Amino acid sequence: MKLLITAGGTSEKIDDVRSITNHSSGRLGAALGENFRALGHEVTYVTTKSAVKPQGITPILIESAEDLAACLTNLLQQEKFDAVIHAMAVSDFTVAKSFPDTEFIAALQTNVEKGKTVEESFKQLLADSQSTAKKISSQAEHLVLVLKQTPKVIGLIKKLQPTTRLIGFKLLVDVEPSELIQVATASLKKNDADYIVANDLTEVAPQQHHAYLVGPRGVVAEAFTKKEIAEMLQRVLEEEAK
Amino acid sequence: MKLLITAGGTSEKIDDVRSITNHSSGRLGAALGENFRALGHEVTYVTTKSAVKPQGITPILIESAEDLAACLTNLLQQEKFDAVIHAMAVSDFTVAKSFPDTEFIAALQTNVEKGKTVEESFKQLLADSQSTAKKISSQAEHLVLVLKQTPKVIGLIKKLQPTTRLIGFKLLVDVEPSELIQVATASLKKNDADYIVANDLTEVAPQQHHAYLVGPRGVVAEAFTKKEIAEMLQRVLEEEAK
Repeated sequence: MKLLITAGGTSEKIDDVRSITNHSSGRLGAALGENFRALGHEVTYVTTKSAVKPQGITPILIESAEDLAACLTNLLQQEKFDAVIHAMAVSDFTVAKSFPDTEFIAALQTNVEKGKTVEESFKQLLADSQSTAKKISSQAEHLVLVLKQTPKVIGLIKKLQPTTRLIGFKLLVDVEPSELIQVATASLKKNDADYIVANDLTEVAPQQHHAYLVGPRGVVAEAFTKKEIAEMLQRVLEEEAK
Repeated sequence: MKLLITAGGTSEKIDDVRSITNHSSGRLGAALGENFRALGHEVTYVTTKSAVKPQGITPILIESAEDLAACLTNLLQQEKFDAVIHAMAVSDFTVAKSFPDTEFIAALQTNVEKGKTVEESFKQLLADSQSTAKKISSQAEHLVLVLKQTPKVIGLIKKLQPTTRLIGFKLLVDVEPSELIQVATASLKKNDADYIVANDLTEVAPQQHHAYLVGPRGVVAEAFTKKEIAEMLQRVLEEEAK
């Protein structure tokens, strides 16, 4: 099979020296890549500079959610993949604007005094052009960062290549299994995924990784280590490829 | 000599899966650590999980600016160091509060309608207790993060151990050398440092690293690679130790 795997966590720049980073060691993706490669499958691997890399695979490196969207669009338009395993933790938000608190408050106050609502004033502040700082000042007592949603990368995959199989991931933190599976099922439907690997951060560690494999009709498998997750995905992909 | 070296970049949690991270590969610190260790000096090394580590030294790992302050306070109260080389890029800001935009706007609007100023409303919003999210919702169109200043770690060092020599670092982005040296000199005076290594991000790369060594009477040396920076610091510390 020809596989596209994404892994690691994206970063969104605040300025030249600071970013908002999604934590993801990349270890699970590396285990998946190595496992599929050892079985003779062809793996295209997209990850980030700081992630753990799979042995024997030259990765494509990206940084932000926007980079990832561009990279996957390019790959999926040029090559046909039997499956996409999208394990990367993608930033939901990127930085729209940053303000020292005093500047932010003064701008809102000026508009409010002109009779505008806080909402109108806030929107105008976002709309006003402002160049991104090279390095934000460290003088202000508080800093206000306004973040905006990034494009949902997982939703692009089946639109760009409807024939591929898509395995997505859903990570929640300290929830009941029923909620985790419900949220994973919603993601599966919304993104036209074939399976979602549903996991909870409280059950993820280097040597342990509990996950449910959620399909259109509910949970079809369960795994307790990264190696077991790799074998679980291998089973469903090879089974359906027959 | 007995040296304390800090290196890498701290991270400040937004929630359990996202952080604001200061970029710093840790390569310069690793080069410094290895160089001083090879010369027979005793090195205590504080860094972060993701930083490049020096060979042959077991580091103490910290994550946030607050962790670092606690770690250095502990070390400087217990042990006497001939010098502290504080190369770590420490977060200036940590997350005070996060709000979905709608909630933030509605709270300000309610207070403004009661006759409060935007500033009073903003301060009240920050003062209101709110538990930190385990994972912030990805539903809001915009998210407002209010950041607050972290304690200035470099300022603690000479207060805790007045007899040590302190070498600090100042990184700016794309400025004239005169401005860089001026800002470094101000940092030297403010933090009672003996030297500041002043560098510009546009001149920092794995194989190249331009830096000025700024002392109380101005620039005393200049280096162009990480190895040269290590040798430059070694010269001034060994010279003065005589």
